[in-house]
Amino acid sequence: MTDEPTVAATDEREPVRLADLKFDDRGLMPAVVQDAESNEVLMVAWMNLEAVQRTMLDGRTWFFSRSRRELWPKGETSGHIQHVEDLKVDCDADTILVKVHQVGVACHTGERTCFHRELATD
Amino acid sequence: MTDEPTVAATDEREPVRLADLKFDDRGLMPAVVQDAESNEVLMVAWMNLEAVQRTMLDGRTWFFSRSRRELWPKGETSGHIQHVEDLKVDCDADTILVKVHQVGVACHTGERTCFHRELATD
Repeated sequence: MTDEPTVAATDEREPVRLADLKFDDRGLMPAVVQDAESNEVLMVAWMNLEAVQRTMLDGRTWFFSRSRRELWPKGETSGHIQHVEDLKVDCDADTILVKVHQVGVACHTGERTCFHRELATD
Repeated sequence: MTDEPTVAATDEREPVRLADLKFDDRGLMPAVVQDAESNEVLMVAWMNLEAVQRTMLDGRTWFFSRSRRELWPKGETSGHIQHVEDLKVDCDADTILVKVHQVGVACHTGERTCFHRELATD
């Protein structure tokens, strides 16, 4: 997350180690999932340290469900797996961006992306 | 945020009213900011209801700083304003996606995007 102004840490351009990821007080950080081909933003979900580790080891996305309080591999029930192409961390090391090759669709509604709803202006 | 499986609400494809946005227990939701031209993900920050309203009214992004506990207009000090092209809400109405035309760079480090750090594999 980015607030401004912020004093830049000297190591902000270095690779981030897992131990240096800044999870929130629940041990979570937001993960933005982006389509590696279309660059569409597909969804945002939560990762804890173990979800990040499993995602790196497996090459497919794992998240942490806040409601069920457990790890879940994306596509476990739907088959709509996300194969990871790239992982990036933001300047503050508290948000992760995952570029994926999406099998099927990302959204449980059947839409390609979860971000398909307009915001009403009234 | 998307957990699965989730029971789809019947109105999930309808425009979302401001009153139906689902802010967390701090009154905040993550906002993903995407470059409208390159589709690069530029940053993730937080919005409360007033930040969403000001962003819609102003046509430029406003966020809520958790550390300073106040609204801030992006680019206030740097001049790196984000002109809003499109707003979308996700299926759960708890995350917002803002497509913008970025003046200058999004990141306070001088990088185009905040997501420029690799995750070390060791």
